[in-house]
Amino acid sequence: MTDVMAGIDIGGTNTVFGLVDRDGNILSEGHMSTAVYDEAEDYLEALAAHVQTLADAHASPVKLRGVGIGGPNGHYFSGTIEDAPNLPWKGTLEVADILSTHIGVPAVLTNDANAAAMGEMLYGAAEGMKDFVVVTLGTGLGSGYVVDGRVMYGWSGFAGELGHVIVQENGRACGCGRRGCLETYVSGPGIVRTVMEMLGDAPRGSSLRDIPMQAMTARDVTDAARTGDALANDAFARTGHILGLALANTIAITSPQAIILFGGLAQAGRLILEPTLRTMETMTLSNLKGSTRLLLSALMQRNAAVLGAAALAWADMGAGK
Amino acid sequence: MTDVMAGIDIGGTNTVFGLVDRDGNILSEGHMSTAVYDEAEDYLEALAAHVQTLADAHASPVKLRGVGIGGPNGHYFSGTIEDAPNLPWKGTLEVADILSTHIGVPAVLTNDANAAAMGEMLYGAAEGMKDFVVVTLGTGLGSGYVVDGRVMYGWSGFAGELGHVIVQENGRACGCGRRGCLETYVSGPGIVRTVMEMLGDAPRGSSLRDIPMQAMTARDVTDAARTGDALANDAFARTGHILGLALANTIAITSPQAIILFGGLAQAGRLILEPTLRTMETMTLSNLKGSTRLLLSALMQRNAAVLGAAALAWADMGAGK
Repeated sequence: MTDVMAGIDIGGTNTVFGLVDRDGNILSEGHMSTAVYDEAEDYLEALAAHVQTLADAHASPVKLRGVGIGGPNGHYFSGTIEDAPNLPWKGTLEVADILSTHIGVPAVLTNDANAAAMGEMLYGAAEGMKDFVVVTLGTGLGSGYVVDGRVMYGWSGFAGELGHVIVQENGRACGCGRRGCLETYVSGPGIVRTVMEMLGDAPRGSSLRDIPMQAMTARDVTDAARTGDALANDAFARTGHILGLALANTIAITSPQAIILFGGLAQAGRLILEPTLRTMETMTLSNLKGSTRLLLSALMQRNAAVLGAAALAWADMGAGK
Repeated sequence: MTDVMAGIDIGGTNTVFGLVDRDGNILSEGHMSTAVYDEAEDYLEALAAHVQTLADAHASPVKLRGVGIGGPNGHYFSGTIEDAPNLPWKGTLEVADILSTHIGVPAVLTNDANAAAMGEMLYGAAEGMKDFVVVTLGTGLGSGYVVDGRVMYGWSGFAGELGHVIVQENGRACGCGRRGCLETYVSGPGIVRTVMEMLGDAPRGSSLRDIPMQAMTARDVTDAARTGDALANDAFARTGHILGLALANTIAITSPQAIILFGGLAQAGRLILEPTLRTMETMTLSNLKGSTRLLLSALMQRNAAVLGAAALAWADMGAGK
């Protein structure tokens, strides 16, 4: 009988889940549609049934010890998701309580970036570290801070919003209603906005001129940069510079052993790493210089979201036996 | 027999020390010159003798349980002070070890701002809080972050350098060798520099025109503002705005229950509080808005540095008996 935790990643379109043993092996996985359910209760009931079935149907017997959930706006203290902009349901969803009741084991919830941080700590690039930051570069910029071995939730439970640090007063409009947030510059859509600005600023040849903004992705910018497109390379340099300064500033506050980049934009590899590291090193306070490593996630080729959610469950409920 | 901790505040000119009971009462105090000792060893030996004498000479018998020390660049993990710019000795000083050996009780060291944070947590404005920040506004800007009930030291031991967050790329020259650090704008000398810039920017009447920069202090700016000097009031508004934005950004990262202002510039009271709070509230991310209080230190009329250093000792070594 293998002890497992279920790791669940709630996304706006799909929900992915898996059974994960203590060593971080995903024994089995499944997924379901999120968006088709009109009522959150129906969705959570169906999700519980899927997880239960996965455990019951596993080839060798497993003992489901608990459930870890990563989801947008997931609040660790209350176990609820409140008004997540990319989920179809409004109001406060008692996600952890409802899943725990249906499945009959304890459940714990956090947001995606904190789950990613737990995944890196238990099974990834932060193994053995007690002070580090995971920065997820996707449609937004999320972050999970681990301080002295524990996720920093802060007084409100919503700590770790590096993407909403204002890096440019009266800068770019952000989905949060303010201006100049880091994620408006450093994220998938952020680098596309930078390309648009650069195209507007000076006429220059670039394959990116052939792609409408609506269709352009960070992947297009990456591909262009790899084929030597100067404008695309400049966009990465500018993005990395802004990120590097923000990271130097976060080093001044939390002094982590490592900052780990994850997500779509991180898959650009050295295109984003090099300019970020250059500015980060230059801009870091002298007595902290060289003390923080900049790393890529070790989980990008695995199901990091499921692993992270399960890692949270293992960290919180895995003691004993 | 009353249990006490010695609290020691090492300054560049003077060193102040006192015996503090568990409830934060300073039973007796003393001070000595720092700058007159050519050798750090001689200074530390004399300091140990002073503390010992204070304990021996106390009217009612006390039991000295330990020593807490706050000092510039004080490193908690190693108990050392390394190349503090405002101390007369260079190299690495084994402050905690040497004092512990001479006095015969355990000793623990941290920097001034972290000691201030411990003082506020045990005896001041942060009593009962587990997540808060103390910002000391003096000749520089120091900060101590408490996360989940413990000072955040970070991987290096040098976390909490809010004063060296770069708020303006290529901004004002900082003593650290970089440009645009928060403390070049928000500190005693910082507001004086702002006054100078404003005087240079546009000719306007102000009593501050009569004071040479070399002689001007934050106190002069405060006095002028209180008598209705428009330029001085504008300087506070600008300083508060820059601080408020930096605090909104630190709220996004650590989500504290309170941010507590301490030090000379904080003694300007509402002159600095009001503009800071206004910008902080406006610039804070919506789901964190209203969750962090901005407070003045509750220890400004007491010997906060001695209390803070003793609080560190009580927190670290006060268990039992």
